[in-house]
Amino acid sequence: MHMAAMIRTAILGASGFVGAELLRLAAAHSAIWPARLFGDSHAGASLPAVHPHLALAYPDLVVERYASEALQDIDLVFAALPHGHSQAIAADILDRGIPFVDLGADFRLDDAASYERWYNEPHATPDLLGRFAYGIPEINRDAIRDAKAVAAAGCYPTAAILALKPLLGLIDPGTITVDAASGVTGAGRAAKEETAFCTVDGNFAAYGLLSHRHTAEMEMALGGSILFTPHLAPMTRGILATCYAKALGPCDPLAALAEAYAGEPFAHVSERSPQTKWVLGSNAAHLTARYDARTGRVVAIAAIDNLVKGAAGQMIQCANLMLGLDEDAGLAKVGVYP
Amino acid sequence: MHMAAMIRTAILGASGFVGAELLRLAAAHSAIWPARLFGDSHAGASLPAVHPHLALAYPDLVVERYASEALQDIDLVFAALPHGHSQAIAADILDRGIPFVDLGADFRLDDAASYERWYNEPHATPDLLGRFAYGIPEINRDAIRDAKAVAAAGCYPTAAILALKPLLGLIDPGTITVDAASGVTGAGRAAKEETAFCTVDGNFAAYGLLSHRHTAEMEMALGGSILFTPHLAPMTRGILATCYAKALGPCDPLAALAEAYAGEPFAHVSERSPQTKWVLGSNAAHLTARYDARTGRVVAIAAIDNLVKGAAGQMIQCANLMLGLDEDAGLAKVGVYP
Amino acid sequence: MHMAAMIRTAILGASGFVGAELLRLAAAHSAIWPARLFGDSHAGASLPAVHPHLALAYPDLVVERYASEALQDIDLVFAALPHGHSQAIAADILDRGIPFVDLGADFRLDDAASYERWYNEPHATPDLLGRFAYGIPEINRDAIRDAKAVAAAGCYPTAAILALKPLLGLIDPGTITVDAASGVTGAGRAAKEETAFCTVDGNFAAYGLLSHRHTAEMEMALGGSILFTPHLAPMTRGILATCYAKALGPCDPLAALAEAYAGEPFAHVSERSPQTKWVLGSNAAHLTARYDARTGRVVAIAAIDNLVKGAAGQMIQCANLMLGLDEDAGLAKVGVYP
Amino acid sequence: MHMAAMIRTAILGASGFVGAELLRLAAAHSAIWPARLFGDSHAGASLPAVHPHLALAYPDLVVERYASEALQDIDLVFAALPHGHSQAIAADILDRGIPFVDLGADFRLDDAASYERWYNEPHATPDLLGRFAYGIPEINRDAIRDAKAVAAAGCYPTAAILALKPLLGLIDPGTITVDAASGVTGAGRAAKEETAFCTVDGNFAAYGLLSHRHTAEMEMALGGSILFTPHLAPMTRGILATCYAKALGPCDPLAALAEAYAGEPFAHVSERSPQTKWVLGSNAAHLTARYDARTGRVVAIAAIDNLVKGAAGQMIQCANLMLGLDEDAGLAKVGVYP
Repeated sequence: MHMAAMIRTAILGASGFVGAELLRLAAAHSAIWPARLFGDSHAGASLPAVHPHLALAYPDLVVERYASEALQDIDLVFAALPHGHSQAIAADILDRGIPFVDLGADFRLDDAASYERWYNEPHATPDLLGRFAYGIPEINRDAIRDAKAVAAAGCYPTAAILALKPLLGLIDPGTITVDAASGVTGAGRAAKEETAFCTVDGNFAAYGLLSHRHTAEMEMALGGSILFTPHLAPMTRGILATCYAKALGPCDPLAALAEAYAGEPFAHVSERSPQTKWVLGSNAAHLTARYDARTGRVVAIAAIDNLVKGAAGQMIQCANLMLGLDEDAGLAKVGVYP
Repeated sequence: MHMAAMIRTAILGASGFVGAELLRLAAAHSAIWPARLFGDSHAGASLPAVHPHLALAYPDLVVERYASEALQDIDLVFAALPHGHSQAIAADILDRGIPFVDLGADFRLDDAASYERWYNEPHATPDLLGRFAYGIPEINRDAIRDAKAVAAAGCYPTAAILALKPLLGLIDPGTITVDAASGVTGAGRAAKEETAFCTVDGNFAAYGLLSHRHTAEMEMALGGSILFTPHLAPMTRGILATCYAKALGPCDPLAALAEAYAGEPFAHVSERSPQTKWVLGSNAAHLTARYDARTGRVVAIAAIDNLVKGAAGQMIQCANLMLGLDEDAGLAKVGVYP
Repeated sequence: MHMAAMIRTAILGASGFVGAELLRLAAAHSAIWPARLFGDSHAGASLPAVHPHLALAYPDLVVERYASEALQDIDLVFAALPHGHSQAIAADILDRGIPFVDLGADFRLDDAASYERWYNEPHATPDLLGRFAYGIPEINRDAIRDAKAVAAAGCYPTAAILALKPLLGLIDPGTITVDAASGVTGAGRAAKEETAFCTVDGNFAAYGLLSHRHTAEMEMALGGSILFTPHLAPMTRGILATCYAKALGPCDPLAALAEAYAGEPFAHVSERSPQTKWVLGSNAAHLTARYDARTGRVVAIAAIDNLVKGAAGQMIQCANLMLGLDEDAGLAKVGVYP
Repeated sequence: MHMAAMIRTAILGASGFVGAELLRLAAAHSAIWPARLFGDSHAGASLPAVHPHLALAYPDLVVERYASEALQDIDLVFAALPHGHSQAIAADILDRGIPFVDLGADFRLDDAASYERWYNEPHATPDLLGRFAYGIPEINRDAIRDAKAVAAAGCYPTAAILALKPLLGLIDPGTITVDAASGVTGAGRAAKEETAFCTVDGNFAAYGLLSHRHTAEMEMALGGSILFTPHLAPMTRGILATCYAKALGPCDPLAALAEAYAGEPFAHVSERSPQTKWVLGSNAAHLTARYDARTGRVVAIAAIDNLVKGAAGQMIQCANLMLGLDEDAGLAKVGVYP
């Protein structure tokens, strides 16, 4: 590996699931090199101690406590932090002119009032909101390519928006329901009874009834009035979003999806009902849709891996665009199936 | 055990999952005795060979090929057969005057045209349809108690109908969407690639888009126009039905559920979002509901064990009513959790 | 229910998994009534808040902080506490003359030095050790029946001892290896990263190499020199113990098991390789064994549900014996399969 | 991609799990191009119909019926067929001088009598046995590099041999026990009740007691007398082999493993007990070992992904060596965790 030519990358939140996934994907990327790893809760620990599955690829890396000075030789910043944290550091990163891909919710919404309403706290740096492009390349590629900062979309919104955005001329956006199921990695690494094996195994339930914050992103991108119900499924990875809306009239939503995503490297449209395991570990989104003449409604379905297309993979896809690399560098199109 | 006083019961379909579950529940029932077991595909086999988990309770039972004559000393017939099969034998059982609880789809719909439309074949004995009571005790108890024949409801309809029936005055039935997830036992015991471990483990997908036959039962019981999307979840048992509809106005659907099911032995209404594993192995249904003022819609959710409240347990609950036994005889209210 | 005739039972550790399981089993028991529930970490909470799956059976019970005075009207004490805790309260319970079944490790070993060696702390009440019978009815029924106090066996030892005890004349006890896999409930309810869904799902690993404390119980009951390696399997319940030893000569270990357990209500011996799900939720143990002429060794295998035959079920089985009830009262012989 | 420079590869058994995995890995390989896919049971089908997860990478490939003529422009043959099938075609492939990596059991054992004993049929081409190198690079690298034909090792033997081979001077090979657990992909793609989701989910059991054919490979590579007990674990992928033997004396088996595998690209030795999910989807093997002074025995443990290091990945690793490519080309060292 010619490290001199590599893009020196800092990962904030390196001890979490998304941090680990960024490192896994970087190991297969020809240009992105994880130069500095930040993770306050595990600061000082060797990476193999924090993520044993990464031991063979990165035997010598160490997790550090974050400090602004550490960014001085950095060419790219990835942040995967709890919401609120990026607001405290974004100005510094942007001032340094370092390309920045943030996965937190801090800069996804385009207006501070919406942030405050859904996150129950005022936005600390509302003036920066306009400097972030919303990070779903399939619907916002040009803006991402030109941006210095990208707010990668949430996992559920990525699935729902990919399924519904091309159908907006066919459906009544005031009637959208998004019913989605997620694997447990969506809840993060911290141990909680809600995500303990004995709680989740063989179990299926809805959560966050009426109040899940990703509703805001979906309404920003799709307009209309969206009722979103997330469910926790007994699986580690994957999101399936099953989306419903009243049709404006007889229509062919499958053709609309196929047309919208023709030539896309990571979006696959098919008549087959997508399965989350088909995309496990990959950056692919599998999609289908139907018009139901009996009820006059449309169903559109998307499957993604929440940690890849819904997080680390989309971050790298965005970074590839920002840096002028091949958009698919380091990203698999093929799931680890079965 | 005083076998002389026991109700001599025949089980048709004894080698399948529902047959096994009837036997499991019968082992804890003070009055129901499985006298004859029928299952053509395993005829001649000992029960422990067909269902090893039942070996300690029934070391000596044998599965037989079905023959009408075998019913002569029988006091109760349970049938858990693929749809179509019960039509061929129901007249004989009814003529003999034996109480009959059928789990097939054959006698659930109240009109033959609807059966033909959803099952793609004419009904063979439409004149018998009127002699079966629809088997969900919580909404049809008196009719079941008086009936000689009961068509126990399907698994998905049981969940959806329990969640929505008490809300019919609050919602527009023309806007109902039922989005449900089922454990894999719902697909039966026969080995298929679709239900292989490697296919389902860590996977989540919708199936039967627009066309699942249980839609007919839901529309019969609830009226309106229902779009039903079933999903296969990576778990053995359990159904969660998440049901949506436009509200007629601001309302309190949770109170409506609580009022409807006050005093019910197996229906539990709570503000908590129900989890399928809470009811595993039991005949319980856990329910909740919400009115969303933001979108003007209602969400109602039910969790059941598809093999118990959605099949064998409900059959026994119906039989208990028909035979004048305690309604909860042999039936657990408590799930095997975790 | 005639509560006047019920055995008023106190459960210590009611908020844990074993506490919940005792309550689930008690709901099907004709004589055991959970009169008082103790659990310091959840003191003051209603039982449905602590264990939602028990809501329909026990809508009104409340968890209390433990106090000795609360035992005054109690007829039976079950304790399922972390090791060390029972030593502090056993003398009081025994002085009151209340039958006591303890699941902790405190009183299982017959000598205090062994306790200190494996648990790294001196035993606080070594004089009480002799008053506890070791609680595996199949190998110690008479002592249990006569005892006022029983130390129910550990989950792994129950499986290994049932598999090996009848073979002691056929094998060299100095060569025993016990390789076992357990479901995750064996690790208790407290949230830990080691037992998080994302850690365990799709994963299999050994733990506690060379040092698992249950080794001491196995050596006490079987003699010899035992190397025990536990594994964590991605399942909620169940233990499979695969046990190896050098044979003293050609032998028929399957016949030895069958003879030892003939007539036992909960032990099933078969040529079929036992599966943990066959016994899920039941008090059954399924067993098999082989002599391998090629290597001169014996393999013996037992499957149990760690929360039932390995914990709460065995406690109730012991209590039934102590109280002169039917040994199988309240205990299923049939697993919840599939 | 410069397809002119690619190695035109034929895959026999392309519709199975190993075939799919070869295709997944080839999609990330800079030199191996799947030019022809053979799979009689799915002949004529498009690859996306047979393996939907591969649709984005290979939209246009088709599965064909095997014919010798189809090999004329082929540079490399991978075969993943049921045992017995490779014997019928190996001579043709070898005569054509095409490098051949076979995953079947046909050419793994070095003597035909052993094949006949364990596979219950005479070997059809015993004269070819000597032309195959046994395919575990870590223990046989030079022979593989020089060979035109390689018999890639079985999944269980790969794990057991990696764990034990470096310890042969420290243990008595006459006392080896291999107790292993496998994910369900090890049983192949064909639908069977034994590998149905409802059978395996939440279940753990041993199978093939005393008679698993992989015993022969282990004894060939390790010598001695091996008792091997495989178990089926409720997970899709992964093998954990826990291996036991009497030590010849006090020893440091962990140091022996570390020394043996220093510098290996895919073998990671650590004091941590290896977990199968750490290596999921990767070609890595994680290993540990202990000497137990109390019993005088050694425990050695290896974790691999049965479909990668135990099958497709090892095949590609061998092909890389045979063709003079980088040994790790196309192969991940990092598991898809969690």
